[in-house]
Amino acid sequence: MSRINSQYRLAARPVGLPKPTDWEYVEEPAAEPGEGELLIQTTYLSLDPAMRGWMNDAKSYIRPVGIGEVMRAGGVGRVVASHHPGFAVGDHVYGTLGVQEYCRSDGRGLTKVDPALAPLPVYLGVLGMPGMTAYFGLLDIGRPQAGQTVVVSGAAGAVGSVVGQIAKLKGCRVIGIAGGEAKCRLVVEEFGFDACIDYKSTDVRAALRAAAPDGVDVYFDNVGGDILDAVLARLARGARVVICGAISQYNATEPVKGPANYMSLLVNRASMTGMVVFDYADRYAEAAAEMSGWLAAGKLRSREDVVEGGVKAFPEALLRLFNGQNTGKLVLKVADD
Amino acid sequence: MSRINSQYRLAARPVGLPKPTDWEYVEEPAAEPGEGELLIQTTYLSLDPAMRGWMNDAKSYIRPVGIGEVMRAGGVGRVVASHHPGFAVGDHVYGTLGVQEYCRSDGRGLTKVDPALAPLPVYLGVLGMPGMTAYFGLLDIGRPQAGQTVVVSGAAGAVGSVVGQIAKLKGCRVIGIAGGEAKCRLVVEEFGFDACIDYKSTDVRAALRAAAPDGVDVYFDNVGGDILDAVLARLARGARVVICGAISQYNATEPVKGPANYMSLLVNRASMTGMVVFDYADRYAEAAAEMSGWLAAGKLRSREDVVEGGVKAFPEALLRLFNGQNTGKLVLKVADD
Repeated sequence: MSRINSQYRLAARPVGLPKPTDWEYVEEPAAEPGEGELLIQTTYLSLDPAMRGWMNDAKSYIRPVGIGEVMRAGGVGRVVASHHPGFAVGDHVYGTLGVQEYCRSDGRGLTKVDPALAPLPVYLGVLGMPGMTAYFGLLDIGRPQAGQTVVVSGAAGAVGSVVGQIAKLKGCRVIGIAGGEAKCRLVVEEFGFDACIDYKSTDVRAALRAAAPDGVDVYFDNVGGDILDAVLARLARGARVVICGAISQYNATEPVKGPANYMSLLVNRASMTGMVVFDYADRYAEAAAEMSGWLAAGKLRSREDVVEGGVKAFPEALLRLFNGQNTGKLVLKVADD
Repeated sequence: MSRINSQYRLAARPVGLPKPTDWEYVEEPAAEPGEGELLIQTTYLSLDPAMRGWMNDAKSYIRPVGIGEVMRAGGVGRVVASHHPGFAVGDHVYGTLGVQEYCRSDGRGLTKVDPALAPLPVYLGVLGMPGMTAYFGLLDIGRPQAGQTVVVSGAAGAVGSVVGQIAKLKGCRVIGIAGGEAKCRLVVEEFGFDACIDYKSTDVRAALRAAAPDGVDVYFDNVGGDILDAVLARLARGARVVICGAISQYNATEPVKGPANYMSLLVNRASMTGMVVFDYADRYAEAAAEMSGWLAAGKLRSREDVVEGGVKAFPEALLRLFNGQNTGKLVLKVADD
């Protein structure tokens, strides 16, 4: 059997938006699994804003991808060879497979997933990291109460769309912020938010004043920058701001813009708290069980943005996250299910 | 009896540092207390950084002082006339007396204080708002644990000096940040901090790296600006940042500088929370009792910076807060005890 493994390895630290030349495309024979190991063929790769941060040589919540290393990515795949007692050929697994077609593994960090319960891309979305991030960030850090006003930026994205839907399930009034009329319509019509502010065509501060006249009790921030500042200016007393991401700043070549309105935290006795989903690993099963129930009952919608083209299409596909093209969970299809 | 009341009334909204002409100095006969009222002669006025914010016409945690109104100030004074059953001539009281020599009151918001238990200025410092701010901000929001590292800016000031001393009493390692060698010496020698960084002569970030190699668990921020950013860059996992003030920004004529390093909250799963001391009014007595005990036992030092000159000296005295001249609690002496 000769399996060719196509990969992208990190070649350079990007400045601003990643360019194709920031990775090296390599094809080589797939590694053979040894004793206690297995080989996984990637079916879908998860493309996430966080990947941009992993490319920087900076201290963060996870070590940077090294130059020459396979680009880090989560994904689902099928076991195609196994000398591991816990995994059989044909099993579907989730894990940090990397941007490559084949991944050799000793089984650590892999979770089996069942394509009969949910389509495989859903394990990268609502039932994967974005869903876990939304669930724990909102419920554990945001702590919304029924009747409160929750604002979510990146509302059409993989995390934001789930945050808003969970907040609705908890009885909140939910306002999204997204870029463009089409995304805003999706946020309201498909994800059921009460309102959505198009930051590209609207003065966000004025729109928030109209949509949240009593202030914002929970703000789930995926974007940072001017939108964070606009929401800070509208906080309600005792508000909780969840810092989940800052996509507006990830490709900035100028210094990060700090939130000039942070003293609103004092005026409103509010808090701003950062979260990293990995801290909740021992509770993923609990969240997945509850969200699977909501999915099955039609109370939670999962939306995936599946890009075809295999591993080779990775650099271009990733840019969809940063140029506003993506809605829902962005995944790259690498092989048939 | 003809008592002349000298006052400062707000005359203009300052731009940048307050100028003497931002207030109008007025002398007029003191009001006569009516039925159920009393007249207080101010002995000491509390001069606080927050006063600068009260002069702005902006939504905040308290309404702005109106143009033409007596400038708001806390103070202690002696009852010199009373038609109020709760107060007798000779009683000493704490309250929002205003920048004036005589204050007519219906008794609401006044607290009796005992000059036999502590010198009157202490009721404006450790046993007053600065002490309450330090106590609740540190213990309720900062929640330091024994063995953790606590950093305090404005460490030689009324609030910061008490924050650090309480943190030491709780078994923490305490690092102050202050401006100038003399203040830093005071912070270490008189207030017992483990170390103090002189931000005027030192690279704060490098000094923090040396003084807090394992990171900062609690940061009590009185200053904002570059120092807030420097400490954010050094947070430990799960750190708590208490936003108490931002004196570096109060007189800024340019937009407030937001903390560019706020994403450290995410990397370190940290939180930044604003506090306003008034929210703890129903627990002041509890804090005052504990801090009086520490004062009596010599475990807590109170330091007051008493400026002479009476009401008339107010505008110039206030500037001591903003030009770095002040250490400890700044009070203006208006009359003999």
